[in-house]
Amino acid sequence: MSHPFDQATVVEKVDGVFRAHTHPAYNNMVGPFGGITAATVVAALQAHPDTQGHPLSLTINYAAPISNGEWDITITVLRTNRTNQHFTFLIEQGDGAVASGTAVFGIRRDTWSATELEFPQVGAPEDYPELPFPEFIEWAKNYETRFVEGSLQLEGPQDSSTTTLWLRDKPARALDYPALASLADAFFPRVFLRRGTYLPAGTISLTTYFHASPAELEQQSDDYLLGTARGARFGHGHFDQYAQLWSRNGTLLATTHQIVYYKDPSA
Amino acid sequence: MSHPFDQATVVEKVDGVFRAHTHPAYNNMVGPFGGITAATVVAALQAHPDTQGHPLSLTINYAAPISNGEWDITITVLRTNRTNQHFTFLIEQGDGAVASGTAVFGIRRDTWSATELEFPQVGAPEDYPELPFPEFIEWAKNYETRFVEGSLQLEGPQDSSTTTLWLRDKPARALDYPALASLADAFFPRVFLRRGTYLPAGTISLTTYFHASPAELEQQSDDYLLGTARGARFGHGHFDQYAQLWSRNGTLLATTHQIVYYKDPSA
Repeated sequence: MSHPFDQATVVEKVDGVFRAHTHPAYNNMVGPFGGITAATVVAALQAHPDTQGHPLSLTINYAAPISNGEWDITITVLRTNRTNQHFTFLIEQGDGAVASGTAVFGIRRDTWSATELEFPQVGAPEDYPELPFPEFIEWAKNYETRFVEGSLQLEGPQDSSTTTLWLRDKPARALDYPALASLADAFFPRVFLRRGTYLPAGTISLTTYFHASPAELEQQSDDYLLGTARGARFGHGHFDQYAQLWSRNGTLLATTHQIVYYKDPSA
Repeated sequence: MSHPFDQATVVEKVDGVFRAHTHPAYNNMVGPFGGITAATVVAALQAHPDTQGHPLSLTINYAAPISNGEWDITITVLRTNRTNQHFTFLIEQGDGAVASGTAVFGIRRDTWSATELEFPQVGAPEDYPELPFPEFIEWAKNYETRFVEGSLQLEGPQDSSTTTLWLRDKPARALDYPALASLADAFFPRVFLRRGTYLPAGTISLTTYFHASPAELEQQSDDYLLGTARGARFGHGHFDQYAQLWSRNGTLLATTHQIVYYKDPSA
């Protein structure tokens, strides 16, 4: 039996498109978990015969929920430069577009390097007990989550929207770019923490920058990642949240940003 | 005489595309300033007859430099929902694609609101002298810049890539969404500060989230904005930087992120 993540992100080339399908293990409230959709796009981009290099940047806009069943990714190679390659993609299901986006792949060269963000001061993953998301969030069962702060055990409104946690695929699985794309969306909407309750919310646009080199992914293997996420401004029915994913040894593997729709029934 | 910004971002509907043109006042090292390209896209989206609401999110990928002269924006309305609208766009010049991206417009509703990021503790704009970018950066002459820290008066490598400054269009101009899109890219590549020198660098992908409501733009009018920008990880020929733009009274008008290519001749 292959890993559920591999089952969920498999794509097949059919009539010039990459055909994907929803997987019940990655269901969200309405439609599939956005992270698994993003991961499937990355898998399709990697499977494209003209692709060069590895993912640098992915932006995916979720225009409508994906229904259970097959869906198609049409990839356009917009331009291939010496050190990077630009793509656009369109996701359709039935007669309609349900998502779209852009991606950039790049060739990584050795250069001067530095990580300016500070690695969060937290204990080792083994210091925190495994604490799952609530039972009804199906996709989260595919992640082992050990919260440092800001879990979904909501105890009323709080002033901070920060979640920091150790996490990895469950069962453990060696990290690759599709898995990193999915993990970048594994932070639930920050507004739940601020309001202390669940409310209708959904990602509109998600952007992830892939900092990890192939060698760093190999070094990471199936170890825990440290994720930390926070919101910036909430208002007028939308908020943004941004997050970082680190390795245990302080390698910044990815940074990610999203803008989220929310409906506040109390307003 | 209209404002240079309005001259530079004017679009004309020709044969189903929006035709734009480069403007010498917004030249960058190679091709136009990325901010003015983004601003022109926002202007074209606003001019589209089917557009509803106001900008929420814009991602633009710069695939190749734009040459002096005309360029065309093809806009596709991907999907119109009740409270938001999804677009894709393609920028072509001559026979080739030079940029592409996605945008989301939205209807703003009154909801619970909060700004979680802290407004930087700095003096008023009038407390800092006007300090322009270096003479050879043509586009920057259209901005009045008053640096709090991290100017382009480079004095060797430094540990922080942070720039904080008050800025506005020069001559002053009432803020609108295109101008906000341009200001979001008015932070030069953070690697210049870290390396203490200019080096080849260019934005690959830029994402801006527009938090400002139309009423907040009106309140802002032509006053200064406080901008602050920082890099996260530099390495393998790429880095990301993220920034915030605030009003004088602490309204978070926009958050923005970009991934940038750089070439380090010393490496």
